[in-house]
Amino acid sequence: MGESYGPWVMGLDSDIMPYVDMANVACGFHASDPQIMDKTVKLAVQNKVLVGAHPGYPDLLGFGRKNIYFSDAEIITMVLYQVGALQAICIANGTSVAYVKPHGALYNTMMAEERVMTAILKAMSMLQPSIPLMIMADSKSDNHSKSAAEYGVALLFEAFCDRAYTDAGALAPRSQAGAVFSSHDQIAEQVEDLVSRRQIKTVSGNYIDIKADTICVHGDNAFALSAVQHVRGLLSSL
Amino acid sequence: MGESYGPWVMGLDSDIMPYVDMANVACGFHASDPQIMDKTVKLAVQNKVLVGAHPGYPDLLGFGRKNIYFSDAEIITMVLYQVGALQAICIANGTSVAYVKPHGALYNTMMAEERVMTAILKAMSMLQPSIPLMIMADSKSDNHSKSAAEYGVALLFEAFCDRAYTDAGALAPRSQAGAVFSSHDQIAEQVEDLVSRRQIKTVSGNYIDIKADTICVHGDNAFALSAVQHVRGLLSSL
Amino acid sequence: MGESYGPWVMGLDSDIMPYVDMANVACGFHASDPQIMDKTVKLAVQNKVLVGAHPGYPDLLGFGRKNIYFSDAEIITMVLYQVGALQAICIANGTSVAYVKPHGALYNTMMAEERVMTAILKAMSMLQPSIPLMIMADSKSDNHSKSAAEYGVALLFEAFCDRAYTDAGALAPRSQAGAVFSSHDQIAEQVEDLVSRRQIKTVSGNYIDIKADTICVHGDNAFALSAVQHVRGLLSSL
Amino acid sequence: MGESYGPWVMGLDSDIMPYVDMANVACGFHASDPQIMDKTVKLAVQNKVLVGAHPGYPDLLGFGRKNIYFSDAEIITMVLYQVGALQAICIANGTSVAYVKPHGALYNTMMAEERVMTAILKAMSMLQPSIPLMIMADSKSDNHSKSAAEYGVALLFEAFCDRAYTDAGALAPRSQAGAVFSSHDQIAEQVEDLVSRRQIKTVSGNYIDIKADTICVHGDNAFALSAVQHVRGLLSSL
Repeated sequence: MGESYGPWVMGLDSDIMPYVDMANVACGFHASDPQIMDKTVKLAVQNKVLVGAHPGYPDLLGFGRKNIYFSDAEIITMVLYQVGALQAICIANGTSVAYVKPHGALYNTMMAEERVMTAILKAMSMLQPSIPLMIMADSKSDNHSKSAAEYGVALLFEAFCDRAYTDAGALAPRSQAGAVFSSHDQIAEQVEDLVSRRQIKTVSGNYIDIKADTICVHGDNAFALSAVQHVRGLLSSL
Repeated sequence: MGESYGPWVMGLDSDIMPYVDMANVACGFHASDPQIMDKTVKLAVQNKVLVGAHPGYPDLLGFGRKNIYFSDAEIITMVLYQVGALQAICIANGTSVAYVKPHGALYNTMMAEERVMTAILKAMSMLQPSIPLMIMADSKSDNHSKSAAEYGVALLFEAFCDRAYTDAGALAPRSQAGAVFSSHDQIAEQVEDLVSRRQIKTVSGNYIDIKADTICVHGDNAFALSAVQHVRGLLSSL
Repeated sequence: MGESYGPWVMGLDSDIMPYVDMANVACGFHASDPQIMDKTVKLAVQNKVLVGAHPGYPDLLGFGRKNIYFSDAEIITMVLYQVGALQAICIANGTSVAYVKPHGALYNTMMAEERVMTAILKAMSMLQPSIPLMIMADSKSDNHSKSAAEYGVALLFEAFCDRAYTDAGALAPRSQAGAVFSSHDQIAEQVEDLVSRRQIKTVSGNYIDIKADTICVHGDNAFALSAVQHVRGLLSSL
Repeated sequence: MGESYGPWVMGLDSDIMPYVDMANVACGFHASDPQIMDKTVKLAVQNKVLVGAHPGYPDLLGFGRKNIYFSDAEIITMVLYQVGALQAICIANGTSVAYVKPHGALYNTMMAEERVMTAILKAMSMLQPSIPLMIMADSKSDNHSKSAAEYGVALLFEAFCDRAYTDAGALAPRSQAGAVFSSHDQIAEQVEDLVSRRQIKTVSGNYIDIKADTICVHGDNAFALSAVQHVRGLLSSL
């Protein structure tokens, strides 16, 4: 959410906000600016939605999706800066940052490289360890929990309802056919599996354990809106 | 302080830090980046120097010195964003933002336009009213104090030891000959007047009341270093 | 045209391009990036549309619409830089910059301040005087022509078909009711007056002379698309 | 040269310019802005120095030195944009871009990846094939020449007088002790070898063929100034 920038609009924030419990709010590096952050936080507050900081790489043109090497110290300070900036805007709006979920390449690198996960945990531990870090639920979740515990930071695990998983518990790459679900039935099946069995059926038809605290839905396209409404309906009925 | 950016160095921060009590630290909009902010805060902590947030206009190329109109809401959110970002970096370093002093055109516009002063006070009131706002001591200081009191924000008044003042209590414009002092004697006289008489001798030779809590010295040139050492010596002997 | 940026889309370029003769293409300062410029130039070439350079202030966040003071030298070099950048992309696509039309605050300041108009003319004269400058047709058009002739630069005068004019030949400010036309009938009447009478009926009902070479239609909203189709139809039938 | 940005100064351009024949001028993506480009081109013209375009990645904070993946199309358009921008500023100053030498990570990636070299050659071929591309003289120089010939672009080969080479004809990595020369004697020996033998003595003491048209000296530190003066003296005496 809040991934517009200056005069450029992205996402259907006001349409989608009523259907979610938690909103990842961009912090001005890969997208957003102080005005948009304020507007997005206000929208979240109105809808009683938790605000998550969504820090990204300082790469507006590339939307924080390009892989760029940053040192541990650079990652620590970019997370501190962005979370602190959003925290101030939250406080001014009577709320506070409820969790941190890195964006784009920072998120992917965090899941792939222990040193990046550690740098983020260090940043959060130094800032305010009571704020949890949201990461992807995968086969290494237990290891991640141990690392986070060393820094006194709680983890929230998320699963993707609209993405196919490999047997190894990773997301199938977008370049692979069927990696991104485009039907409500597929999404519904995955949500039901996540909630009822705490499992996901992989691309090869096997079931793997995925213990998720939250389900991620992207908010930047028209299908996402109907998807999030659908998932909300499913969750209400389960 | 902390007005470098990426690979570009500005200022003699490590030379000057030992001689000051308070450092205005740039917050990434007119100068600085998260790495430089962190380095600058660490330097302040090592020298037991108070860290002030020095938010500026989002104008890196113009170093926050160009006059640009921003709405009240834009000013509120740009102050929140920058102070919050620095606050997080301070907290990670075991300190916290001790005051806020706007930079460049934001500072000048704050002193010139009531609506801008009010917007900044609102931002600080919403964020954390216990953090004081540093403004220029001038003939309207009492009015400013009243405005600030409405928002529950304390003011710190600063005087400039190296700038000539007009009878109206404003700074003589830089374009005017003698507006910027270049001799230690002139600076010494102004500092002594400020401390002993709580007055300043203006360009026309009159004395005006200037009740300052703090004396500002710029940190970005070689003269500044000897000036700050000189002022520090004077203050110690007074 | 070409006012998207990185992942952010603005405008209905591919819808509107078939209906225009000339496209003002953003050059990367107030909007656009090299990829978008290239895509926009290709679209223009496919539609046999002349490419105009649309240089703006270096203010992405403010979309080049904020008034910022730039020295004559700054204006000269920002125009050179942007026109040159687009020229290279045009050459690579087998075309060339057909004219220059400043954007937003640069355009408004050019019309309001002689020194800015002169700086732009100097830049174009030094770069390639055979490229004409597009400005607003107003009551001072003859003076502007004389100034441009001194620099050997031709002018193209444009009129706005969807904006109300004052008796002085300026645009009625957007804050004034009725300043922006929202009906096809109003636009049609203004286009017919411009073409048949070379006049425009002002807000007070008077006719003033407006000798325009070209009619400007904005391309960033849905009404604009039907407007530009409508104007194209009108011009074909006149 | 011209690697300052806004208020931040980098390099000793006016000191070094008198001692070089060719200056690589930054184009606003990794460093510089239109004002600095104009000032740098004027300085080159005054010193009868050829102006080379020095395009880099769009990464001001990282000074164009971070490895970032850009598609072929992105590389083509970023080269076109930057070379065109500098070309316009050159034309306004009565000169023109004499060659193109990519900067930082773009240069390194060009030498390491055929697709990047090809993209740059395509850009130059589409823009103006008479402008040569400067690359590093290495063991694959003949292959590079063939590729360039396909696009009708001439190559200039440069050698580094202050960097140690491996037997494979690559630069020894900066992390390796002795990779960067810090004595005039070492530099003098390498320059003499380059000019007299058209060879370089590698880190293992072997000689390898390096056929260079030009010798590169960095311009951003105090040693560089004395080095460039020294090399200039050597070349005059050879």
